[in-house]
Amino acid sequence: AANYDENASAKKFANYTVFKGKAALSISPILPVFSKPESGGSRVNRNGSVMLTFFPAVGQRKYDFTKKQLFALSPTEVGSLISLGAAESCEFFHDPSMKSSHEGQVKKSLSITPLGNDNGYFLNISVMNNVEKTNERMSVPVTKAEFAVMRTALSFALPHIMGWDQALTCHPQSPSAPAS
Amino acid sequence: AANYDENASAKKFANYTVFKGKAALSISPILPVFSKPESGGSRVNRNGSVMLTFFPAVGQRKYDFTKKQLFALSPTEVGSLISLGAAESCEFFHDPSMKSSHEGQVKKSLSITPLGNDNGYFLNISVMNNVEKTNERMSVPVTKAEFAVMRTALSFALPHIMGWDQALTCHPQSPSAPAS
Amino acid sequence: AANYDENASAKKFANYTVFKGKAALSISPILPVFSKPESGGSRVNRNGSVMLTFFPAVGQRKYDFTKKQLFALSPTEVGSLISLGAAESCEFFHDPSMKSSHEGQVKKSLSITPLGNDNGYFLNISVMNNVEKTNERMSVPVTKAEFAVMRTALSFALPHIMGWDQALTCHPQSPSAPAS
Amino acid sequence: AANYDENASAKKFANYTVFKGKAALSISPILPVFSKPESGGSRVNRNGSVMLTFFPAVGQRKYDFTKKQLFALSPTEVGSLISLGAAESCEFFHDPSMKSSHEGQVKKSLSITPLGNDNGYFLNISVMNNVEKTNERMSVPVTKAEFAVMRTALSFALPHIMGWDQALTCHPQSPSAPAS
Repeated sequence: AANYDENASAKKFANYTVFKGKAALSISPILPVFSKPESGGSRVNRNGSVMLTFFPAVGQRKYDFTKKQLFALSPTEVGSLISLGAAESCEFFHDPSMKSSHEGQVKKSLSITPLGNDNGYFLNISVMNNVEKTNERMSVPVTKAEFAVMRTALSFALPHIMGWDQALTCHPQSPSAPAS
Repeated sequence: AANYDENASAKKFANYTVFKGKAALSISPILPVFSKPESGGSRVNRNGSVMLTFFPAVGQRKYDFTKKQLFALSPTEVGSLISLGAAESCEFFHDPSMKSSHEGQVKKSLSITPLGNDNGYFLNISVMNNVEKTNERMSVPVTKAEFAVMRTALSFALPHIMGWDQALTCHPQSPSAPAS
Repeated sequence: AANYDENASAKKFANYTVFKGKAALSISPILPVFSKPESGGSRVNRNGSVMLTFFPAVGQRKYDFTKKQLFALSPTEVGSLISLGAAESCEFFHDPSMKSSHEGQVKKSLSITPLGNDNGYFLNISVMNNVEKTNERMSVPVTKAEFAVMRTALSFALPHIMGWDQALTCHPQSPSAPAS
Repeated sequence: AANYDENASAKKFANYTVFKGKAALSISPILPVFSKPESGGSRVNRNGSVMLTFFPAVGQRKYDFTKKQLFALSPTEVGSLISLGAAESCEFFHDPSMKSSHEGQVKKSLSITPLGNDNGYFLNISVMNNVEKTNERMSVPVTKAEFAVMRTALSFALPHIMGWDQALTCHPQSPSAPAS
């Protein structure tokens, strides 16, 4: 247990947050999970992701983080975002309860639409709950400079959330030569 | 031997796989092999590669991995793929028995052709066996977003499969100052 | 204290400096600061930055470093610089005493303007001191090749000054299996 | 001394070599040199570089490495190469004896000129020795795919030969909390 705590405290977290008039958007990378090491090595069990967290403004420069909405980008969705042309849009749909008995109750969508004139993008989240009959929407305008930060950070993160950095930099030592 | 097992279990594997109607495609990086360290250091003995594995669908969302066909991209072939223009094609030819007595028996080719309208690419593998008179073909359509993932992952992998990351980040400590 | 000195001496510094007729410009990366590790891990407390240091020429190939002017680029300002089109300009304004009683006394601005014909940029700093009634200006022409170095170095630095490299490469070991 | 040998043997070398009809070209990265660690840390003493090695063909697929000519690209020259447009050229001039009594005896130049039709580049080296009245020239055509490998490898190498990776990833531990 002591060992586990030591590991948890070694974890580091970082994000990139933009605060705008009606809402804020924070993005942060999440590591992949590898299987336990076995004799043949270990493999990626679950891909990492890039988590988008939207939270609404509740006053001037005041935001309510408890009303946050999350959207986790898969590697392919990250690929879509970093290859987005200046005038292009994209939209992703998630069902947080997919393949469970609650499938279809909540529908999340994230759309990215150009602000126009090569000026950045709107990032819009919509969370529709068919049981509670609610539809939360938040929209954050992202400038060209802010999107360049996201594009660079996501391009950097992509090989890491896929585990390729660990596959490519884990160099087991060759067995030491026998002492003669 | 215990040492060797410990090393093998430290190895990590990662891939990026897209599952389509008729076949799936998985790509994964393979490390270069360095020579044994000598007094003057060690050198890349064999370049790494990026392995493409195609395997056919045998039902809805069911794939037969035992019928897989492999194609290992060299650094220059990776360079070709990551610099491919939106409307461009490329094709590579491999002979798995090159420079052996079986040379010419099996001919592999990989071609990458645009889907059209800046929408991604077809990746096509053909394995022609002149002895068994067989010709296996598989084709996987890759969306623009999926190709962006491949391009980013391959650009990241390229310096690693060439060993440049190890040449550039292995900083031998300067000899420690004599104890006084 | 001995521990602290050891740490300080482990720090490494690097920059990229261009020397021109009237002034020189040096850029160097500054690491983010993480909070102290707690049970839940540690977070970025303060983002890193890329420091621009301008210092004037006082003779042929002689520069006076004591007359330097500093400008620290935030992650978003770095994003602005690395996404700058060939014919585009950008300008940033800083107040080193923001939110203190001296707010507004000193106004710094950095502007980046194209040299024309896809030939690089002028980087101009202006430091206006309303109390001392001074206005220091320096301007450094940066060639296309030098700007490519800055763009590449800043793109590399960006995930690091945001702490994403540490969030993505700090892989706490899973608790070791109990000895049996 | 034993310590020193151990360090030398830990060094790793990697290159990227293209073999063509009349000559071959090998590129490999060279690390920067930091000053000895002092109380305030250590700094880059000498930038690294990317070494280009040309050697002539002396028969079919036979090359004479003893007749090699070297050209070491500085960070800014690397920036010039990686930002080269498809139809652009560049040329660099080096004097290996600069600032010595032999200055001007040997003049090296490297020029990069497009093959045409977005098909890659010629890399041409010329080494003119005014004392021995010799002028060695070698020229290597580099395909678009091979140049993409060079561009990617050089972009990767650039922050490393400038020492920015060490400045950005060397995270001295904060002093450990006092034992209570």
